[in-house]
Order: sequence, then C-alpha cells, then structure tokens
Amino acid sequence: MTTDPAPPILGTLESALYADDLAAAEDFYGGVLGLKRIQRQEGRHVFFASGASMLLIFVPAATRVAAAAAIRVPVHGASGPGHYCFSVEPEALDRWRTYLPGKGIEIEAEITWPNGARSIYVRDPAGNSVEFAEPGLWAR
Amino acid sequence: MTTDPAPPILGTLESALYADDLAAAEDFYGGVLGLKRIQRQEGRHVFFASGASMLLIFVPAATRVAAAAAIRVPVHGASGPGHYCFSVEPEALDRWRTYLPGKGIEIEAEITWPNGARSIYVRDPAGNSVEFAEPGLWAR
Repeated sequence: MTTDPAPPILGTLESALYADDLAAAEDFYGGVLGLKRIQRQEGRHVFFASGASMLLIFVPAATRVAAAAAIRVPVHGASGPGHYCFSVEPEALDRWRTYLPGKGIEIEAEITWPNGARSIYVRDPAGNSVEFAEPGLWAR
Repeated sequence: MTTDPAPPILGTLESALYADDLAAAEDFYGGVLGLKRIQRQEGRHVFFASGASMLLIFVPAATRVAAAAAIRVPVHGASGPGHYCFSVEPEALDRWRTYLPGKGIEIEAEITWPNGARSIYVRDPAGNSVEFAEPGLWAR
C-alpha cells in the first residue's frame, strides 16, 4: 500500500443512465431537452453532450455483455430508476418550469433547499429521476 | 406542445452511483480517490465533490422509499453495476495507473481510443465500473 496522496481529478467526464428504449431516450434528451447527440450505436447506447461533460444513455441488456469488438469496454448495466442532475442558471430554471409541461413532461417535484437553491424534478421515458438545479445548491 | 427552443443547460451538476455498503464506498471515493466528502446521511447516501460537480453515492434500498422529512425528494434507486468517468489530465492518468494498484485496486482495462485519448477502468467496492479518462476523449 502506498501512502502517496491521490493524483488530481479534474471532475466528471461521463455520467450514465440506463434505458431499454433508445429511441424514446433520444426523443427526450435530444429532442425535448435539446442536448447535442455526440454518438449513437443502435441497440446499445446514445451519448449526449451536457456542457463540458457527457451524459451516456445505455441499454443495460447490451452493456452487460462484453463486446465482440477490438476495444472491449468493461461490462456494466443497472436496472431501476437512476438519478442525474443538470446545472441550470436560476433564470433558466424558471424557463424549464414552464417549458417542460409545455412539452407534456410533468414536473414531479419542486424543492427549495435550505440554502435557497431551487430544483425541479421530472422523469425521463425510462423512469430515471432527472433534476434541474441551480448550481448554488452545491456552492462551496 | 410548445415549439420554443429548449432553455440553456450549463452541464452536469450531479451524477449518481449506488452502493449497499456506504462505509466501503466512502473508503474508496474519499479515502483512496481522495474526493472531498460534502455530505453524509447514515444509511442513505454519501456525496462527494468531483471538480465542479458532485458524485452522489446512494443506498438504493433507502432512496426507493419516500423520505418522511419535510423535503420529499423523488424516489429512485438502481441495482447492478453502473458507470461513471472521472476526467484526468494525461500526466495524472499515468499516475493513477500506478497509484491504484498500489492501493490494491486492480486495473480491469486500459483502452487507447481511436482519437488517441486513453482510459483506465477499475471497480468500486459495489462493482460499479469507474473510468479515468483524458478529457480529449470527448473533445469537440
């Protein structure tokens, strides 16, 4: 065991959610939320840019088995609703609060946290809990 | 249905992984990886800073039920191995490649992607696939 301090980390490069229906996920994240699609592999995944990092949507049945490709990515794949949160400016949060219902997306919850930051929550088509929050929620 | 463009998104504020054993998760993310712990709720979650965003580790059995607290966060909770990726500079990736085995963490895979960016993969104590990648992987 070494006693060196851990090397530096810049931050989050990829977050993952799971969905069985990639077309529905793409309609939601790309169509409704307006994220830029960066990569799609039919039946396996669709990847979006979320600011400087990436939001990866995987079909768990496809990522639980090792690829036959030359590049073998370690397997993973979760079931049940996950969670992800977008950072949005306060003014943009107000716009999301009206924009999402206008697209037929129900706002499941609105929370004002003890430090004054606000969040709204919706469900993606796969049932994942997707939050939009002011970055001041985790100001530090 | 509105035809307005989607409001802006700054990026990722929170990514989530699940673990039944919070103490083991804290030893790994806080102890071995050196992330700063921001919040802990015994039996439910431990939250870490990952650069400007947050990595949230939840006990799924605890987040699948609505809290009795005044602030009721929507339920979620996945089972099975998830995925998360840290952004690390190339020089830091080389250090992680030796640091992690020095802490008894096996490197499950090393990949050099078609664009030249490199990734290494380990497992957290709960079995989640945790990647360390150069940010050039998703340069755009």
